Amino acid sequence: MRGLKAVPKALFITFEGGEGVGKTTNIEYFKRLMADACLDYVATREPGGTPLAEEIRNLLLAPRDEKVCSNAELLLMFAARAQHLSQFIEPSLQRGEHVVCDRFTDATYAYQGYGRELGVEAISVLENLVHGNRQPDLTVILDAPVEVGMARARARGDLDRFEQENLSFFERVREGYLLRASQNPDRYAVVDASLSLDKVQNQVKQVFEDRVLRVISQAGEAS
Amino acid sequence: MRGLKAVPKALFITFEGGEGVGKTTNIEYFKRLMADACLDYVATREPGGTPLAEEIRNLLLAPRDEKVCSNAELLLMFAARAQHLSQFIEPSLQRGEHVVCDRFTDATYAYQGYGRELGVEAISVLENLVHGNRQPDLTVILDAPVEVGMARARARGDLDRFEQENLSFFERVREGYLLRASQNPDRYAVVDASLSLDKVQNQVKQVFEDRVLRVISQAGEAS
Ligand SMILES: Nc1ncnc2c1ncn2[C@@H]1O[C@H](COP(=O)(O)OP(=O)(O)OP(=O)(O)O)[C@@H](O)[C@H]1O
Ligand SMILES: Nc1ncnc2c1ncn2[C@@H]1O[C@H](COP(=O)(O)OP(=O)(O)OP(=O)(O)O)[C@@H](O)[C@H]1O
Ligand SMILES: [Mg+2]
Ligand SMILES: [Mg+2]
Repeated sequence: MRGLKAVPKALFITFEGGEGVGKTTNIEYFKRLMADACLDYVATREPGGTPLAEEIRNLLLAPRDEKVCSNAELLLMFAARAQHLSQFIEPSLQRGEHVVCDRFTDATYAYQGYGRELGVEAISVLENLVHGNRQPDLTVILDAPVEVGMARARARGDLDRFEQENLSFFERVREGYLLRASQNPDRYAVVDASLSLDKVQNQVKQVFEDRVLRVISQAGEAS
Repeated sequence: MRGLKAVPKALFITFEGGEGVGKTTNIEYFKRLMADACLDYVATREPGGTPLAEEIRNLLLAPRDEKVCSNAELLLMFAARAQHLSQFIEPSLQRGEHVVCDRFTDATYAYQGYGRELGVEAISVLENLVHGNRQPDLTVILDAPVEVGMARARARGDLDRFEQENLSFFERVREGYLLRASQNPDRYAVVDASLSLDKVQNQVKQVFEDRVLRVISQAGEAS
C-alpha cells in the first residue's frame, strides 16, 4: 500500500465457556485492558448484537410449550449470527475496531453439536454458509468444572431455558469446547476459570499481552 | 403389510404463485373439494403453521429500519419451515391427513433465489438440511402476469414488505416458479390464474381430479 498508512488489522476476539463460568465478568475486565492500552474496540454478544438478532435471541430463550426442533434452533441461531456478522461485526472490523464477543459459533458447536449431540455436520454446513472466510482471531475459553459454573449462576439467581438442562449435557458442552481448543491451539486460549476471580484475571491479562498486544505490535512493526 | 390394512399415503400439496394471484382464494375452494370427497385434510401456510413459526413469520414481515441480510432472511425462513415440518406437517401426514399448504420451499427458490437473485445453492443446502426426504407430492402453481396479481392485491388493500419490491423482482419470481415447474412436471401443475375466478377454479378442479383423486383411488386399488 505505497503512500498509504496501513490500517492495522482489527482482531475478532470471542469469549466462550459453560454457564456462569465468568464470561461476562472477564469480558468487562478484558475491555478495561483494551481501553488502558488505548485500543479501539466494540463489545457485543451472541445470540444478539443487532435489534433483529436480539429479537431472535428472545425467541430462542423464551420458555414455550411447543417443542423446538433442533434444526429450528440451529437455524435461528445462525440467522441471528448472519445478521450480527453482516450488520455489526464486519463493519466494525472494517473500521479498524477490535470486536470482543460474548459467545460465538464455538458455542453452537459446544451446546448443539456436543451438548445436544446433534453432531457437527449441520453446524459446519451453516458455518460455511454464514461465516464466509471470517473466523475469530482469538477465542478465550473459560474452563471450569460444571458444578463451579452452575453454582456461580445459581448464586447470581437467574435461570433460562439452557440452564434447566441436566448435568451430563453441560459435561458434554465442556468437553466439546476443550476438544475444539485442542484441535486448533493457535486460535484458542484455555483459561482455568475455577480459581478465584483475581487468579482468573491474571490469566486473562497474560492472554491479552501474549495474544493481543504482541500480535498488534508485531503487525505495527511489519507495516 | 400382511394382516394389516394399509393406511393410504397422505398427500402433501402446496399452492404457489406471486402476490395476489389467488392462492388463498383457491385453497379455500380446494378445501371444499377435499371435504366434498370426504378426504381428511389439514390446511396450513408458510412461513408459519406453528406458534413459533408464526413468531418467526412476524419477524420476517415486520417493516424495520435495520437492513436484513439475505442469509438471515433465508435462515429465518428455513427455521420456521423446520419447525412447521417437524411439529405440524410430518405428524399430520403420519396420521394419514392430507396437508394443503399455502406456499412452501418453492416460494423460497422463487423469491430469494430468483427474485432477490441470491442463486439457488444456499437454498438447496438448507433444503437438504431441513426437508430430509420430504417433498410436496403436488405443487399447484397459480400463474398470472405480475400486474394481474399486483392489481388484485392492491384492490384487496394491504401491502407488506415483499409487496414494496419492484416489478422486475416479481417478474423474476414468476419466471423462477415456471422454471422449477418445467424441470419437474410430475410434481407441478401450472394453472392459468389470469382468468376469471370460475375459470381458474375449473382448472383447479381438474388438477384435483387428475392429481389427487385418481392417485388416491389408484393407491387404494393397489393395496
Ligand atoms: N472466578 C470467579 N470466582 C467466583 N465468582 C465468579 C468468578 N467469575 C465470575 N464469578 C461470578 O459468577 C457469576 C457468573 O459470572 P458471569 O455472569 O460473568 O458468568 P457468565 O459465564 O457470563 O454466565 P452466563 O453463561 O450466564 O452468561 C457472577 O455472579 C460473577 O460475579
Ligand atoms: N381469478 C380471479 N379473478 C379476480 N379476482 C381474484 C381471482 N382470484 C382471486 N381474486 C381476488 O384477488 C385478491 C387476492 O387473492 P388471494 O388473497 O387469494 O391471493 P393470494 O395469492 O393468496 O395473495 P397473497 O400473495 O397476498 O397471499 C382477493 O381479493 C381475491 O378475491
Ligand atoms: Mg454472561
Ligand atoms: Mg394469500
